[in-house]
Amino acid sequence: MHPKFYEKEKPVPPEEYVRVDHESLRSWVSKVFQALGLRRDYADIVADNLVAADLMGISSHGVQRIRRYVGGIKVGSINVNPDIRIVRDMGAAVLLDGDNGPGQVVGTKAMNIAIERAKRYGVGVVGVRRSHHYGIAGYYALMAVEHGMIGVSLTNARSLVAYVGTLSKYLGTNPIAVAAPRRNPPPFLFDAATSTVPVGKVEIYAKTGRSVPHGWAVSLEDGRELTGDAAPILEAIRKGRAALLPLGGLAEETGGHKGSGLALIVELLAGVLTGAAWAIHVRNTTDPQPANVGHFFMSINIEAFMSLEEFYDRFEKMIEEIKSLPKHPQADRIWIPGEKAWLTMETRKKIGIPLHRNVFNDLKKLSEELGLDFTVKVLKETA
Amino acid sequence: MHPKFYEKEKPVPPEEYVRVDHESLRSWVSKVFQALGLRRDYADIVADNLVAADLMGISSHGVQRIRRYVGGIKVGSINVNPDIRIVRDMGAAVLLDGDNGPGQVVGTKAMNIAIERAKRYGVGVVGVRRSHHYGIAGYYALMAVEHGMIGVSLTNARSLVAYVGTLSKYLGTNPIAVAAPRRNPPPFLFDAATSTVPVGKVEIYAKTGRSVPHGWAVSLEDGRELTGDAAPILEAIRKGRAALLPLGGLAEETGGHKGSGLALIVELLAGVLTGAAWAIHVRNTTDPQPANVGHFFMSINIEAFMSLEEFYDRFEKMIEEIKSLPKHPQADRIWIPGEKAWLTMETRKKIGIPLHRNVFNDLKKLSEELGLDFTVKVLKETA
Repeated sequence: MHPKFYEKEKPVPPEEYVRVDHESLRSWVSKVFQALGLRRDYADIVADNLVAADLMGISSHGVQRIRRYVGGIKVGSINVNPDIRIVRDMGAAVLLDGDNGPGQVVGTKAMNIAIERAKRYGVGVVGVRRSHHYGIAGYYALMAVEHGMIGVSLTNARSLVAYVGTLSKYLGTNPIAVAAPRRNPPPFLFDAATSTVPVGKVEIYAKTGRSVPHGWAVSLEDGRELTGDAAPILEAIRKGRAALLPLGGLAEETGGHKGSGLALIVELLAGVLTGAAWAIHVRNTTDPQPANVGHFFMSINIEAFMSLEEFYDRFEKMIEEIKSLPKHPQADRIWIPGEKAWLTMETRKKIGIPLHRNVFNDLKKLSEELGLDFTVKVLKETA
Repeated sequence: MHPKFYEKEKPVPPEEYVRVDHESLRSWVSKVFQALGLRRDYADIVADNLVAADLMGISSHGVQRIRRYVGGIKVGSINVNPDIRIVRDMGAAVLLDGDNGPGQVVGTKAMNIAIERAKRYGVGVVGVRRSHHYGIAGYYALMAVEHGMIGVSLTNARSLVAYVGTLSKYLGTNPIAVAAPRRNPPPFLFDAATSTVPVGKVEIYAKTGRSVPHGWAVSLEDGRELTGDAAPILEAIRKGRAALLPLGGLAEETGGHKGSGLALIVELLAGVLTGAAWAIHVRNTTDPQPANVGHFFMSINIEAFMSLEEFYDRFEKMIEEIKSLPKHPQADRIWIPGEKAWLTMETRKKIGIPLHRNVFNDLKKLSEELGLDFTVKVLKETA
């Protein structure tokens, strides 16, 4: 039923990429962060998170981002040895202060608390302030799945998205991730920006010469929706002359108030409620001032509602029903959230992670700068 | 700053409508349900919920729906005297069995439990099975706001929406409602179907001769997106030849997987996790078999995170920032979720609720059928 090799995000053109072994990549990334002062277990978390993104086909959040984290550590905004502590605690709801530690470390601690509280009370929510960019949101939601629970992970982020009815880039792409266990892998995993697309998607379209459709971007100069050639649109976004559009697009008629409303809910829970920065106040990782990113996690204990076996039965039955619906003629197949990422991961564990040569060479350079052996194994000189 | 009289959903053409006093409408609706066997307090809840929808400009969920509930009671699928009971209880997570009671009564009981648990543990979630259509989702989210909490309300519903990549109407419009308190009214209230529009919107477009834009509906015969003249599109939806599209539209490129993924998450929490029916298995209110609708409620205690005053300060500051962004030239104004419904409510409390003459006459007829005095006061013979 599943194709043998599947990649959600294909390396195009293949000759610009090398394939590297994910395990050697993970241990090298951990060494990088250890060299920068992180404890071994913290460095392992950051490395696992970045490599998971590459494995799952979300390269925008993978090792190509390593320079930003390194920059944040060097400039002092990321605290390599944070005192992450519980500020408030009502049992099932906890407020955590990340002490400006690496977002992945803070996020992992927070989700572990949410899971532990869900074991005790049936549900656990953890709000987090003073954190940093935490990588892919789905990573934390999946942590709950390993305990047979439903996981939710929300974060705010640097602002890039127009709030409906405005000429602005006030909101972040504020993703919503929800994961749930299934009897057999892949787990259910919804992990989506509340904008129609994240900026990484525009980058891919620009690189591959594709045309941007309706609902992705808006000019901040005159409010026109931007469609067509992706390269100038990407340029306009980068220069601050354009913004991404919320899911549902520019106008209320197509649901733009829904996408920006969802982004606002993420901001409300992750930013406002936690004491973190919100929207335009969230800083870049490499800014000398800490980014003060906010997160919100939830873990729901399925056994507070029914046995895990009964849940599996019911969930699989629904998924089977969806899988046997008549397929739309333009769809390649009927996908359940999480399947693409999982198939990509399975594929890349076997044939390696494609890294663009520029990224690969930059990792090598970083290794030299830090006086580290570059132990990343190349499996194939092209993707 | 606020317009004096504002209505989210305008009665068009005005001469087809009468304006009625909301208080007399509410007490008459309660009498209808009392006549059908509901306890006074239960009948009051149903009446309050239906009239709230009319006040807020969501007439599709208002008193025009009363015949369906009456039909459900008459056919025996709605249990007028339900034994609503807690099935499982882990403290902050509770499973409630609605015993096929009126959705509004079951939903209100459930949200009260969520609020009570959030007082104790910081958060409370309540899953509900064996319920019925509960009216507007936002009604329950707003209950939390009255306790200074953030409220979440999810429900599944009769299937009408195409899952991405399929030719089907497998999913319900599965709304997501989130409400949060503000220092002064209106409270924040996001209440949105996970389809681009609910079917009521297509009805309004059909009635007013407007043209359906991209992203609303799909033909189940050939998978074409349906745009243009709304009347035949509505007809096709009613006949089962077309479906509503998820938020984000037909294709993944415009985010259709996000809208249908969100609908699936609602189904997962409200339907699968609770033991209720899901998707296509949810029955009509008037079906002889109980609908077995599922809901999921959450209440988050703000004081688990910070003082209410601090939260108000922060939230208002964010809202002020949004309000002062440059307005898009095509937007009438910059709206925060909840403002339109609140202004409509304020307006209709003063000048009355517009009821279509057909609806009004049918209420009168229902009153006669039940041998009740028709005590609804008409304020104006036209809207």
